[in-house]
Amino acid sequence: MTTTPATRHTRERHTEAPGYTSHKADHLARLNKIEGQIRGISRMVTDDRYCIDVLTQISAAGRALQEVAVGLLDDHVRGCVTDAARTDPAHAEEEFAELNDTLRRALRL
Amino acid sequence: MTTTPATRHTRERHTEAPGYTSHKADHLARLNKIEGQIRGISRMVTDDRYCIDVLTQISAAGRALQEVAVGLLDDHVRGCVTDAARTDPAHAEEEFAELNDTLRRALRL
Amino acid sequence: MTTTPATRHTRERHTEAPGYTSHKADHLARLNKIEGQIRGISRMVTDDRYCIDVLTQISAAGRALQEVAVGLLDDHVRGCVTDAARTDPAHAEEEFAELNDTLRRALRL
Amino acid sequence: MTTTPATRHTRERHTEAPGYTSHKADHLARLNKIEGQIRGISRMVTDDRYCIDVLTQISAAGRALQEVAVGLLDDHVRGCVTDAARTDPAHAEEEFAELNDTLRRALRL
Repeated sequence: MTTTPATRHTRERHTEAPGYTSHKADHLARLNKIEGQIRGISRMVTDDRYCIDVLTQISAAGRALQEVAVGLLDDHVRGCVTDAARTDPAHAEEEFAELNDTLRRALRL
Repeated sequence: MTTTPATRHTRERHTEAPGYTSHKADHLARLNKIEGQIRGISRMVTDDRYCIDVLTQISAAGRALQEVAVGLLDDHVRGCVTDAARTDPAHAEEEFAELNDTLRRALRL
Repeated sequence: MTTTPATRHTRERHTEAPGYTSHKADHLARLNKIEGQIRGISRMVTDDRYCIDVLTQISAAGRALQEVAVGLLDDHVRGCVTDAARTDPAHAEEEFAELNDTLRRALRL
Repeated sequence: MTTTPATRHTRERHTEAPGYTSHKADHLARLNKIEGQIRGISRMVTDDRYCIDVLTQISAAGRALQEVAVGLLDDHVRGCVTDAARTDPAHAEEEFAELNDTLRRALRL
């Protein structure tokens, strides 16, 4: 019961707040902007715009998406991972393995 | 005048069809799906879903976006670049430099 | 004084063992193999081998290098970051910021 | 017989010069430097250097390796691909497919 809601968020205990709670509005604003970027890219393709210009916008959107990922990872390590490390060593092992898988996916390994 | 519209597309001559014309519907379908993925990620954040699950979906969307980029690059090399190489050596040099910049951006160099 | 040498490794306190100590031999073996891969790539270029085959080997070496990076990141989070989170909150903030910079560099943001 | 040796290089016809011939010394110098970087990283691990500093050097070496890849790709498109496009349409199709596979590997798709 001493666990603070902001940090002890897991897939199982999803009624609690996730690690990114304090930056939620920021992440949503970025994702909203990315959705607009993707829509803009579709419009460029519809309008037969030059391939290279379309590719430049795809690179920008991909980079923006990675920025959101890095922000969420930062929140996750600060919140969930270190909280588990502090209070529940058995659960921490699980968090480390999960984080490792996530980094591998982010780096496409 | 013997230039086919499908291949001789540049930023300047944008009234002509781009290299990706024959795959346009396919690219648009993929971009549409990605737009839906981004919207789904926003919904996950709104719903306080577990950080790692959000990150997994971001990796999937990023990969899907790169698939579109590789498809457009393939179309561009087959269309614009080789057409320039065949018919207009001076313009080809410009195309090669532009392609190189685009690859560097795609690889984030 | 209760800090174990294996976990409290920082740039300043570099007389202590780094987070990757227990996997040191493994990381060195992988790096050694990568050094051999790079030497092999040089030999391919010297021998005028086909561009695409050289590029395939470069992708393999790049991926192997990222595997070492992910292994070191995993060791770092398990060791240094969570130890700081447990015992020294002020230092933890510094570790989180440093980890974030490192992730951004790894993802080329 | 009118094919110039510098451009018509394939895996099968490997007695001819590859597309990167004119930049061979440059690519070898870069690869040599990267080999030294990898050796330096091994030394850092041997010396128990701080994890983050090792990771920073790995990112630098990975980026340098991608620079070689982009240089070789540029040479390949200018040489092999456009030459095939100009002189041998049947072979060009094969080159395009091969280039596409290579881009996918470089982007880890």
